[in-house]
Amino acid sequence: MRFWPKKRVFLDYASITPLDKNVSTKMKQFEEALFANPSALYTGALEAKEAVIDSRRKIAEILDTTKDQIYFTSSGTESNNLSLLGVFNSFKSENFTPHFITTNIEHPSVLEVFKEIENRGGEVTYISVNEKGLVSARDILNSIKNNTVLVSVMYANNEIGTIQPISEIGRAIKEYRSKNMTEHSIPYFHTDASQAVLYLPLNTHSLGVDIMTIDGIKMYGPRGAGILFKKEFVKIQPIIFGGGQEKGLRSGTENVPAIVGLAKALEIAEDKKESESKRLTLIRDYAIDEILKNFPNSDLNGSKEKRLPNNINICFPACAGRPKIDAEFVVVALDVHGVSASYSSSCRTLKEDSSSYVVESLGAKDCRLSSLRFTLGRESTKADIDFLISCLKKVIK
Amino acid sequence: MRFWPKKRVFLDYASITPLDKNVSTKMKQFEEALFANPSALYTGALEAKEAVIDSRRKIAEILDTTKDQIYFTSSGTESNNLSLLGVFNSFKSENFTPHFITTNIEHPSVLEVFKEIENRGGEVTYISVNEKGLVSARDILNSIKNNTVLVSVMYANNEIGTIQPISEIGRAIKEYRSKNMTEHSIPYFHTDASQAVLYLPLNTHSLGVDIMTIDGIKMYGPRGAGILFKKEFVKIQPIIFGGGQEKGLRSGTENVPAIVGLAKALEIAEDKKESESKRLTLIRDYAIDEILKNFPNSDLNGSKEKRLPNNINICFPACAGRPKIDAEFVVVALDVHGVSASYSSSCRTLKEDSSSYVVESLGAKDCRLSSLRFTLGRESTKADIDFLISCLKKVIK
Repeated sequence: MRFWPKKRVFLDYASITPLDKNVSTKMKQFEEALFANPSALYTGALEAKEAVIDSRRKIAEILDTTKDQIYFTSSGTESNNLSLLGVFNSFKSENFTPHFITTNIEHPSVLEVFKEIENRGGEVTYISVNEKGLVSARDILNSIKNNTVLVSVMYANNEIGTIQPISEIGRAIKEYRSKNMTEHSIPYFHTDASQAVLYLPLNTHSLGVDIMTIDGIKMYGPRGAGILFKKEFVKIQPIIFGGGQEKGLRSGTENVPAIVGLAKALEIAEDKKESESKRLTLIRDYAIDEILKNFPNSDLNGSKEKRLPNNINICFPACAGRPKIDAEFVVVALDVHGVSASYSSSCRTLKEDSSSYVVESLGAKDCRLSSLRFTLGRESTKADIDFLISCLKKVIK
Repeated sequence: MRFWPKKRVFLDYASITPLDKNVSTKMKQFEEALFANPSALYTGALEAKEAVIDSRRKIAEILDTTKDQIYFTSSGTESNNLSLLGVFNSFKSENFTPHFITTNIEHPSVLEVFKEIENRGGEVTYISVNEKGLVSARDILNSIKNNTVLVSVMYANNEIGTIQPISEIGRAIKEYRSKNMTEHSIPYFHTDASQAVLYLPLNTHSLGVDIMTIDGIKMYGPRGAGILFKKEFVKIQPIIFGGGQEKGLRSGTENVPAIVGLAKALEIAEDKKESESKRLTLIRDYAIDEILKNFPNSDLNGSKEKRLPNNINICFPACAGRPKIDAEFVVVALDVHGVSASYSSSCRTLKEDSSSYVVESLGAKDCRLSSLRFTLGRESTKADIDFLISCLKKVIK
């Protein structure tokens, strides 16, 4: 039996969110009473098919688009892979080397795909963010070349919570396309909105995006379930082949419970967006202030203004005889005291070098192994922050 | 509101199975109370990680292998894609054209992948089955060439339920490999066991398979969840890139509820295998006898002996003034009477030509649009068959 402190404060909502009870109830219907393969021809199957169509419609409404531009995948990771590899495979040929533009702080499910695209002969430009963790629309525009097929910029960062100027980039790309009258409307604009979905507007028109990734697990929705928004003109080749589901873009029996769960989770997220954003911004700012006050020399990583309401990421460098913290040690020590936190992202802890390339990109090299991430969610309260501070004081001396 | 007959008999278990209640209960724990990203470093995450390891161990035990040879994917379709495309990508080079051997009655999630492999420059030999729907190990062996990297033969067919001689093929391939001392132990032997999992032995040693696909949705398990068994020496390149989960073979946050659900479903399947196989064989044979008796000239598609206990697939050709049936019409008419059945497979109804290539492969061309599939499951009874026969009599005149 592992030691489990009485009080436990979960501060890692950017890594995973629990399944909302209302989402769970909705899903259960389609796992048991209404289970059926939507591609079959009998009554239950038609109900399942209708539930899938209805979910597509509900999601489309929130994204201000039509249901035929909504596709279902098994995760945010798969949606990102399908977007990037799918566009690469559509355009690469003996006479054409597709070029991509992205930032140096994207999630591994984007950066690792770009590495693979480079291995397969594609060309990728990585734009550096500034010391606040923000990318400039001008830098992106200046990197567009004749063979640029896609620009991928995450809506909000998973480690430091910085919000990128997506609408501005979207506008710049659209202007470039119409000025240059590019064939096939390239470059396409893709954004990974997985971290943004709970807090930021998702209107795909205003954002000016052509492809968008959303992940169920980050929005109190189903695990192993992702959404891909893709405009009709965007040419994407499938990466998984078979029965031809999702209009041939993604084969495999439709996961009906997950699909209805995604729609329900997105609807709930939309309902709570404004109030939760306001509530969490206050808690976030309280936390930042308290930490900076209690730990001299500590500093916020990334912009405070262009920041998700739920993200707190702090560097604890050496100060007054105290050495800089070892983030991995502190996360484990905080766990013993009952706080679940993280350093860099969960997806990075699998790598041998689990330091934060995101924090490093801000130019503060000393912080890449000495920063902690606390991310808030629906259960978070100001009292949680007081508890966190008291634990931090015990652990960082 | 759609018309829904009072009595409903579900006879399409080969297409989809409901989620077992015990599996559902187990999954729920990891969706709510024990939710956590298993790659994180705090207590809940470690519990999640342990649950994943424990599930791997339980599944490995049933397959008579070790836990490090068990991988989790989002479906049987993805497991098949990863097996075939992954091996193709590992071996293809400027100087080497990988060659594959398969049968002409595989599931679309295998046949469509082979089409894609051919598009990408690979070579595929399709072995025809005999009039009973069975492939010969000798035919496979005779097709192996120096550049053959993989043989893929499904354990049991999804449409006609025929059971292929997997152990015999496995033995023949092993003998070929040791006689020819092939590099990298090629050709590998892959089988899609998705339809076999509830009724046939899954010991990977006795079967002599190197790679095996299992699908959650076909075994009363989680939707959007698949298992891939892969021996250590098998070289497979990932098709989805990112955080490096599943030892780099399949990125994306682990779907913990689905993973514990897969282990639980497989355990239950194993427990019920013998008794359900016996029980359903009796019902199946009763159904076949009754249909053939009541519909002169009707005929069983595929071997009766080498057949899954739950599969009934019958051709209804023209007879005594009655025209041959239109399978699509009959399925819809049966639905009105309360019976859920199918013709060809659900994955085929998405294609423009939804006739059965499996039934056609048996040499009975007249049957490809005139055959019905009834597949049994845990809720099926002899009374269901009596009801089916009474409905069939009303629909086929």
